[in-house]
Amino acid sequence: MPDQKKALLIIATGENAEEWRSELVKAAPTLDIHVLGEEFDPATIAWALVWRPPVGYLASLPNLEAIFSMAAGVDHIFADDQLPQGIPVVKLVHEATRQQHRDYVLHAVIHHHRDMMLFAERQPQKVWKFVRPAMNAQRSIGLMGAGPLGIFAAEALVSLGYQVRVWSRSPKSIDGAQSFHGTDQLHDFAAGTDILVSMLPKTPETIGILDAALFAALPEGAAVVNIGRGDHLDEGALLAALNSGHLSGATLDVLAQEPPAEDHPFWTHSKVRLTPHIASEPNPWVTAMAVLGNIDRMQQGLAPEPRADRASGY
Amino acid sequence: MPDQKKALLIIATGENAEEWRSELVKAAPTLDIHVLGEEFDPATIAWALVWRPPVGYLASLPNLEAIFSMAAGVDHIFADDQLPQGIPVVKLVHEATRQQHRDYVLHAVIHHHRDMMLFAERQPQKVWKFVRPAMNAQRSIGLMGAGPLGIFAAEALVSLGYQVRVWSRSPKSIDGAQSFHGTDQLHDFAAGTDILVSMLPKTPETIGILDAALFAALPEGAAVVNIGRGDHLDEGALLAALNSGHLSGATLDVLAQEPPAEDHPFWTHSKVRLTPHIASEPNPWVTAMAVLGNIDRMQQGLAPEPRADRASGY
Repeated sequence: MPDQKKALLIIATGENAEEWRSELVKAAPTLDIHVLGEEFDPATIAWALVWRPPVGYLASLPNLEAIFSMAAGVDHIFADDQLPQGIPVVKLVHEATRQQHRDYVLHAVIHHHRDMMLFAERQPQKVWKFVRPAMNAQRSIGLMGAGPLGIFAAEALVSLGYQVRVWSRSPKSIDGAQSFHGTDQLHDFAAGTDILVSMLPKTPETIGILDAALFAALPEGAAVVNIGRGDHLDEGALLAALNSGHLSGATLDVLAQEPPAEDHPFWTHSKVRLTPHIASEPNPWVTAMAVLGNIDRMQQGLAPEPRADRASGY
Repeated sequence: MPDQKKALLIIATGENAEEWRSELVKAAPTLDIHVLGEEFDPATIAWALVWRPPVGYLASLPNLEAIFSMAAGVDHIFADDQLPQGIPVVKLVHEATRQQHRDYVLHAVIHHHRDMMLFAERQPQKVWKFVRPAMNAQRSIGLMGAGPLGIFAAEALVSLGYQVRVWSRSPKSIDGAQSFHGTDQLHDFAAGTDILVSMLPKTPETIGILDAALFAALPEGAAVVNIGRGDHLDEGALLAALNSGHLSGATLDVLAQEPPAEDHPFWTHSKVRLTPHIASEPNPWVTAMAVLGNIDRMQQGLAPEPRADRASGY
């Protein structure tokens, strides 16, 4: 049972905090829970569950022991340049989160592999025309990002019989997949990739990494899927590569500006499929389970996990 | 090496037989291969690789030893009421065929489970609106048909964490899935199914099985996927269930008439997704491998497989 003197604070900028509170209260009725904006004693706050915390606010909590992210990504926390040092920042990586990312990737890969964009375009034109797809063993999927979510998706793609290659900052060993790492190997990685899937975290090194040079390195007819962050993508370069016919299509779950402007060309581009940032979603029940599990660990003297690394930014 | 006196005949009604011949010639250059319409001695034909053989034609071949289907389904062969008795009819079930069916099912299930039809509808309307999906463990997928293809798809869905139930003529045991069988259990099966996927073979018992009564038994908001045969579906009943809002959407790879008529309502229905009969495709290389493997088996005195059962019709 959690210590009655310690409380949890919910900071859910732009979201409805009550959805998270209700799941937490259901699962831990004796835990003291506050939402930013209500009256409470800042000295009681031992844990903060946050989405886009106001800059400088977390530094004002004198007894904070852990910061839990409401999402797999933590860039919304590290964006706070006054973030208190030495307090663990914990990523949300639950089985359900891994499944959601994995299934989004499987769907997007099959969507491009099996010509579903073409069929979606042809249906309202009343065109019924068989297309013979390549077989899985003949299609190479290139995943960028090999954290827990990327590895989980890569393993699923391997098990479905695709050729799988992974690119990440440091070398990884994933059964059945080929590993590439670092800037030097990025273009070799791309040259053998038919469907590129970015699951990268947002760091200074990855901003703008999906650019004209990378697209040019992909083979003719390749497709691009982005479920990392919108800032990874050079939107103009993607448009140019789609319009020239070099790339066959793109599936984008994240954009630099969400929602995109009314006149953004992606809305109506026949080769762009948009989804409203749903690859993984901050399910309050999942979040409650992950946070309460980590509070339990901390009450037992263990460190919460998985922790983000401040130096690398993820 | 195949017996030089025995020859293979390709019957590819409405298809380009040369695509199959070229793969067979590449893999077995010494095998005698003929295409229906060319001159050859009917007495040499030991094996026929067929798609929609002309009624009565196969009965005219005096030394036929096996009939290979170009597809997983064999209804196009059993439609011949003069089909010679006692000659094995062999279904095309290759690893690649199983993968293609499985991946089509995974894609369609995730498409409905993760609200992709809604996002596709909203994109041209320039609407970016987050939708919180149910988790896999909370979604029940009901597969109709538990042949080799159905079991393969069911196992994949189980491994992804969905609730899986299977309905078939006779009871089946699939790890992690609930089995229902026979007409008596059909509506119990449907009542607990959120996404219904039909992979049934076409037999007198299954024609029209996707009907108003079955749709009414599904829970509100359920989706329907058909990759069996178009004749399984009562199209009017599906339209009514979609238009009333009882069903949330349908993905159809097969239709009673392909392509559908110019004025068919499915073309432009916002809740219907059509694909042009591509769930599995008669890939000539895969077919060549399967057929040559079975000819090898027969040369060694073994029976070809998997064989269709004339009595059940699949």
